[in-house]
Amino acid sequence: MPMLTYSFVDIGSESLYQHLYKCIKNDVLTGVLSPGTKLPSKRSFAKNLGISTITVEGAYQQLLAEGYIYSLPKKGYYVSDISGLTSVSASAGKPQFHLNRDHWVYPADFMSNQIDPDNFPFSVWTKLMREVMADGKEALMKISPCGGVLQLREAIAGHLRQFRNMNVSADQIIVGAGTEYLYGLIIQLLGFDKVYAVEDPGYQKAAKIYRSNGVACRYVSMDGEGLCIDALEDAGADVAHVSPAHHYPTGIVTPIGRRYALLGWAAEKDSRYIIEDDYDSEFRLAGNPIPTMQSIDVTEKVIYINTFTKSLAPTIRVSYMVLPSHLAQRFYEKLSFYACTVSTFDQYTLARFIQDGHFEKHINRMRNYYRNLRDALLSEIRRSPMAELVTIREEDAGLHFLMEVDTLTSDQELLKLAEEKGVRLSCLSQYEQNREGKTREHVLVLNYSGIKQDHIGKAVKLLSDCVLSCERRARI
Amino acid sequence: MPMLTYSFVDIGSESLYQHLYKCIKNDVLTGVLSPGTKLPSKRSFAKNLGISTITVEGAYQQLLAEGYIYSLPKKGYYVSDISGLTSVSASAGKPQFHLNRDHWVYPADFMSNQIDPDNFPFSVWTKLMREVMADGKEALMKISPCGGVLQLREAIAGHLRQFRNMNVSADQIIVGAGTEYLYGLIIQLLGFDKVYAVEDPGYQKAAKIYRSNGVACRYVSMDGEGLCIDALEDAGADVAHVSPAHHYPTGIVTPIGRRYALLGWAAEKDSRYIIEDDYDSEFRLAGNPIPTMQSIDVTEKVIYINTFTKSLAPTIRVSYMVLPSHLAQRFYEKLSFYACTVSTFDQYTLARFIQDGHFEKHINRMRNYYRNLRDALLSEIRRSPMAELVTIREEDAGLHFLMEVDTLTSDQELLKLAEEKGVRLSCLSQYEQNREGKTREHVLVLNYSGIKQDHIGKAVKLLSDCVLSCERRARI
Repeated sequence: MPMLTYSFVDIGSESLYQHLYKCIKNDVLTGVLSPGTKLPSKRSFAKNLGISTITVEGAYQQLLAEGYIYSLPKKGYYVSDISGLTSVSASAGKPQFHLNRDHWVYPADFMSNQIDPDNFPFSVWTKLMREVMADGKEALMKISPCGGVLQLREAIAGHLRQFRNMNVSADQIIVGAGTEYLYGLIIQLLGFDKVYAVEDPGYQKAAKIYRSNGVACRYVSMDGEGLCIDALEDAGADVAHVSPAHHYPTGIVTPIGRRYALLGWAAEKDSRYIIEDDYDSEFRLAGNPIPTMQSIDVTEKVIYINTFTKSLAPTIRVSYMVLPSHLAQRFYEKLSFYACTVSTFDQYTLARFIQDGHFEKHINRMRNYYRNLRDALLSEIRRSPMAELVTIREEDAGLHFLMEVDTLTSDQELLKLAEEKGVRLSCLSQYEQNREGKTREHVLVLNYSGIKQDHIGKAVKLLSDCVLSCERRARI
Repeated sequence: MPMLTYSFVDIGSESLYQHLYKCIKNDVLTGVLSPGTKLPSKRSFAKNLGISTITVEGAYQQLLAEGYIYSLPKKGYYVSDISGLTSVSASAGKPQFHLNRDHWVYPADFMSNQIDPDNFPFSVWTKLMREVMADGKEALMKISPCGGVLQLREAIAGHLRQFRNMNVSADQIIVGAGTEYLYGLIIQLLGFDKVYAVEDPGYQKAAKIYRSNGVACRYVSMDGEGLCIDALEDAGADVAHVSPAHHYPTGIVTPIGRRYALLGWAAEKDSRYIIEDDYDSEFRLAGNPIPTMQSIDVTEKVIYINTFTKSLAPTIRVSYMVLPSHLAQRFYEKLSFYACTVSTFDQYTLARFIQDGHFEKHINRMRNYYRNLRDALLSEIRRSPMAELVTIREEDAGLHFLMEVDTLTSDQELLKLAEEKGVRLSCLSQYEQNREGKTREHVLVLNYSGIKQDHIGKAVKLLSDCVLSCERRARI
């Protein structure tokens, strides 16, 4: 048995126990204490070092727990065999990953979905959250069903009944932290063996999510009314992901006939479903909101999905889906081991926000705000030097519109020019997968929800400069 | 052209425009207006009905948007052909799914991870959230990187440096709404073609999540030190999901030798990784926390994952993982289209909570609370009639311990008895997949974090009744 002696001078803020633990561990790691070596008994070691038995006991227990030593009943403590393992030892020089922090802020950003802090109802939200935290301590700590807290699901069901004419039970509603997360749940619910169809052109993220989840995803072409039924058949699709209320980016509103045709397609096979993405229906600026496919579906084929990203804020991560009854049943049978991904604090606050009528008021306020924003933007465009070179389309349905530019410049060049001038935008052609026709060149997609009122002049000036320099380039 | 006449008497709260829209829509749906029928011009229709042209215009636009009518340039409006589609018409009698709301509350619940509302730092949390909402409006509305807001990631990195001796960059940290969600991201990052290994016995949810995500998941047997390397090899596993700090439910702490052996296993092939689930390491009740595998890994093979579920509250959905640098890089290349699933409100509040030292204080307070709770529970057990029939094990590592019962009664019967007496608990054998040995019968897994101090007496009484009636039954 070696005579172990360690110094307890200058150990700084370390406890005696920590210091002793580190000394022995170091000796084990460096081989000073070889495997099988018996350590001194706690009492004699403590006496030798002039410390208490409890301190030695503490160090031994920690070394034992971590496996540096082992104990034999009624015999004592021995050094473990960790030979050959120390070569893979910790190093301070471990590589570290660092994100690039240089975020270029575009003077004119027609792609952002960030909202102006002035447009978030901070005072009401703060008040409701305080109320929730004062009144609802028990409820806040209670684990909610995987679909979300009942109060929020009931508030959403009420909202859907009143504003979307949808008659659904609160228990068919599944709340989740963003539609992206909900897509993942849908895949787990419907199956990894299904073929998912997305619109071409379309919202690119949907396809990315399906592919990232390892399921077959096919682009299906659209005509002027929405997804083509023939193309859907040809693609061998099981699940069609559509946005009939307002297609992104074309702005197409799927008419009732095509809606029924899609429902008819789904009704033909058990495996078929429709995911109805109703992402910005609250902001239809002309006429009433279009009735949802969910509300005219009696065949239990439509999964309705919506989010508070556009209607409240993208940084509060709350979305929801409405499952047909048999899928809601299956969800609770198969997937109820998942915890709901939204904090109860946010769920109860949002529930009150909806139930007390604040949500309706907020949407009405924001619809007016966006209408004024759009009108100001359009009139600025009409007054700008580019006016006679551009045509505005699909300006009524939601938070973006299309601007067709009369130019020969390719979209690629146009985007490069825009980038140079500090204009962030996208072209319709970028959302197309099947580019054979190339019928959609020279059409800009302008999301205006992120443009501030007092930046409109500057944003349109930059956009106009860009369009004019395009045109000139083409004519040289 | 038919002479359309609608009554505008008794239309209640409907607007004239809505009423006209509904009347025409109804006539289209019921076939009163047949496909191809030309509708009256706006002006003559308005004059006929005694309403304004703008009202008719509104109704026509809505019907047009929804596809019930179509327009021909310079000719007018015509009824669409929706024949054969109306058979699939909306019905009020749509089936609705309803969850069973009868939740039986167990007088003694040894499986809950709910926390007592008294243990959540409501006053500090409310204060911080108010500060965040008052000071940080711009920041709260700004969309965070997919890994989470920098301030929270830096706070977590600081915490890991100080308390887990882990030296990681904030950019290697990915924040998400629960570990379950993060597992899904890991699968997308490492690949659906990989074989995932989970511990047998083990935390059942991990296997459920892998299977639900459609990836191969194999149970790998454990010995007294953790996952067996040979079994891991035999399983053909690529990714090993382990909880070396405190295995659930056995309580095993993986010693340093096995940790290095696991790292050695992972280092052998490029495709191999280790997911280190450190879920309740903050609550080790004796000695220091065990060093993480992440901190001794120089081969970039360990994905460290932890949660605020145990350390703060399960209803605030915040978890995080630390990716090795090359995986962090890959994450931002492949998966940065995902939005972070945690609300910025919660992220900034938690960041302040950690940075201002509240988290450390809270953990220390809770560790004492749980130590006292455990001690009270153990002493109650020792005083109870069942004392001589039971042996307590693994009571130091986290928020549960094992209680071996000296009985011949099968676990199945034991669980039935417990259910009858209102005791919710699980047996070690329930966590085993490979039941050949059946070496783990008669061992109860007692999670005590959900037991209230003043319910201990009652809970132990019920548990003791259960154990005693077990024994008697076996001897009859």
